[in-house]
Amino acid sequence: MTKNLLVAQSGGPSAAINATLAGIIEVAIESDKIGRVYGGCFGIEGILKGHIIDISSQITCPRDLDLLQCTPGMALHTCRFKMPTPKKDPEPYQKLVDILTKLNIGYFIYIGGNDSMETALQMHLFTREQGLDIKCMGCPKTIDNDLPHTDHTPGFGSALKYVATSITEIFTDINSYGSKSVCVVEIMGRDAGWLTAGSGIAKICGGAPHLIYIPEKPFDPEECVASVKELHKTHTHVIIAVSEGIRGKDGKYVFIDPLAEGKVDAFGHAQLSGSGRYIESLVKKEVGCRVRLIEFSVLQRGSGHIASAEDLDEARDVGKAGAKLALSGVSGKMAAIERISANKNQTTDEYEYKSKIVPVDLELVAGKVRQFPVEWLLPDNTGLTQEGLDYFLPLMTSRKDVPMCKGLPVHFSFEKKYVELPQ
Amino acid sequence: MTKNLLVAQSGGPSAAINATLAGIIEVAIESDKIGRVYGGCFGIEGILKGHIIDISSQITCPRDLDLLQCTPGMALHTCRFKMPTPKKDPEPYQKLVDILTKLNIGYFIYIGGNDSMETALQMHLFTREQGLDIKCMGCPKTIDNDLPHTDHTPGFGSALKYVATSITEIFTDINSYGSKSVCVVEIMGRDAGWLTAGSGIAKICGGAPHLIYIPEKPFDPEECVASVKELHKTHTHVIIAVSEGIRGKDGKYVFIDPLAEGKVDAFGHAQLSGSGRYIESLVKKEVGCRVRLIEFSVLQRGSGHIASAEDLDEARDVGKAGAKLALSGVSGKMAAIERISANKNQTTDEYEYKSKIVPVDLELVAGKVRQFPVEWLLPDNTGLTQEGLDYFLPLMTSRKDVPMCKGLPVHFSFEKKYVELPQ
Repeated sequence: MTKNLLVAQSGGPSAAINATLAGIIEVAIESDKIGRVYGGCFGIEGILKGHIIDISSQITCPRDLDLLQCTPGMALHTCRFKMPTPKKDPEPYQKLVDILTKLNIGYFIYIGGNDSMETALQMHLFTREQGLDIKCMGCPKTIDNDLPHTDHTPGFGSALKYVATSITEIFTDINSYGSKSVCVVEIMGRDAGWLTAGSGIAKICGGAPHLIYIPEKPFDPEECVASVKELHKTHTHVIIAVSEGIRGKDGKYVFIDPLAEGKVDAFGHAQLSGSGRYIESLVKKEVGCRVRLIEFSVLQRGSGHIASAEDLDEARDVGKAGAKLALSGVSGKMAAIERISANKNQTTDEYEYKSKIVPVDLELVAGKVRQFPVEWLLPDNTGLTQEGLDYFLPLMTSRKDVPMCKGLPVHFSFEKKYVELPQ
Repeated sequence: MTKNLLVAQSGGPSAAINATLAGIIEVAIESDKIGRVYGGCFGIEGILKGHIIDISSQITCPRDLDLLQCTPGMALHTCRFKMPTPKKDPEPYQKLVDILTKLNIGYFIYIGGNDSMETALQMHLFTREQGLDIKCMGCPKTIDNDLPHTDHTPGFGSALKYVATSITEIFTDINSYGSKSVCVVEIMGRDAGWLTAGSGIAKICGGAPHLIYIPEKPFDPEECVASVKELHKTHTHVIIAVSEGIRGKDGKYVFIDPLAEGKVDAFGHAQLSGSGRYIESLVKKEVGCRVRLIEFSVLQRGSGHIASAEDLDEARDVGKAGAKLALSGVSGKMAAIERISANKNQTTDEYEYKSKIVPVDLELVAGKVRQFPVEWLLPDNTGLTQEGLDYFLPLMTSRKDVPMCKGLPVHFSFEKKYVELPQ
């Protein structure tokens, strides 16, 4: 007897989350165990409101899936809704289960970060408790790269390619000028410095960034000023890469925008802005040269035109593996990436990267954070160790050839035609 | 008897100014009329200080030129030094001529915007007056696209491709969310709205930008708020593209950052920041939804990884033509682009763009500005007319395949080894 599959997305957008969705849809459409493929729009919050579309009727050819794979952002949209634990309030879980039962869902896959993996885990536990046969799986996604038990997360490689490329180009641009300057580049990462630290790969190519500051390593303003002054002895321009959320030696965020002070989002995370602005002011005051601040904003997570081919292809594989695992009866797991090898070819000096997708218990991932190993950052914050370079570089060596029309990227979108729930 | 050639760059960087440099060097190296090819570092200001390199010794193979063509920024660096008129102060001109004579320069080519064309013109007139045989030519460059008597300027097509692509990707990213919002995108252009208006091409692909505000058309805050409210009736997210410098009905800049107020650069241009910040505040206050501000900063002029192939190839042709004209005895001219045709192929719906390079009198260009024809913008600021689309679209249909190493762009740079001037 066939069952249906429901997939949804949560958390922040990335260039690869739709690639994972494409992988799930591909396997689900091909499987004779699955009847309809449904998509929950606006995450778990949307599913609770019945915002569910019939994906099977909207994906009509393999080209649709290829276009979806190359589309940044979240084709099923997202929510920032934090589910309570079933112990605290079983009601939303019961409501979800009722909706899933009405749609004859046998497979539920949630794509997202550690908060989303928590939701997938709770759904797994709740359906088990109720004796329901719904396989609940998680697929990882976050440009923060802060999920444990996976070598890295889909979306990270593309964000890294954008950030490292942009820093290289910013440095070349600024080098046109002859007077000393500092350029502060603020990179996403509230608590995780992976992306900011990873930008250090750009140094092997273009020479920048010269200084890297991340949340995992206490920030010392005096040391920062001294480093800039020292670098200015031999460099006209100094590029500083800094994460959104850096902390002083007292463990407190170095700078919280007064307007946002005390504000937290639904997940209890502080809403930060301004670590870049803080360093900009610091350098202006203490060094006195021209200082420019560049914030990559959403472009760093959504620039499909420069997405990493390794990333988008692996993200699709993650989706395929997640769906296949669910079909084979697995539940309560996340499809994780295991790096098999990334050795350098001695002749070409290129990495020969290989990975496979493996299941890990959602319990090991849900709500947990993996910090960047600070020992990969040079003690003076000027770059990465060889170990760090060898970790980051293989994730973004090729650019995905994405569909274009009249010189502009073409993106896939679903029609928001919600299905009627059977009574 | 062979003479030498001196080339320099001025004004702001772009993705294509080095392509023009590559074209000049290519022709100069191949010509038996030219001995050495010299490069003035840091524009006319650097030449006055004797900061001149021997390019001939640093360009050793055609691959160097191809790499230079694809390198954004300014390989010879720039200055923001405003030459006085020779009438006011002939001294710097006399000094320049002395340096050029010592180096046996017979050909002087200056790459830049309208201020640089003024310098090239004055050099032409001054050398004529002194009876010196130095051919002085200008090659256009500016992402502002505001030079007259050329269909467009090298560098503009690549900036357009970056801006339009980024707006498409920002819109897709923001569409992941379900609550109403506005995103203000601030685009370079102090007095010229070409680049901001041109971003309207992205609408035919992704649907954004929804509103466009440029310096050439008076900005009405009430109308802007009304437009956003009207668009929000049918659109969850509204993207506003705004030039750095927009003016109210009184002709004054709508917003000048108080910190920068009254500050002008060496050319007497107001140093602006904040038209985006102004609209952000306006919409927050009067519409009340979530508002995000994104500034493309230097990335819009220096993103070689997404440079337009049409732009980089044409920029190189401009350089080649400039050098060939000088070699054939022409002086006091700028190598301009003339659009021959850009008809749409009825079968493929693609533009078949053709152009040629023609000389125009520097007098017609120097210090002059070409304004964007406001009639190409729809009266309600929501997009471009077909005439506007037909002008902009052919300039950025293909992406230049630029050299990469380990997934990052590779850039050419000259060694700053200054030649010793003969006494």
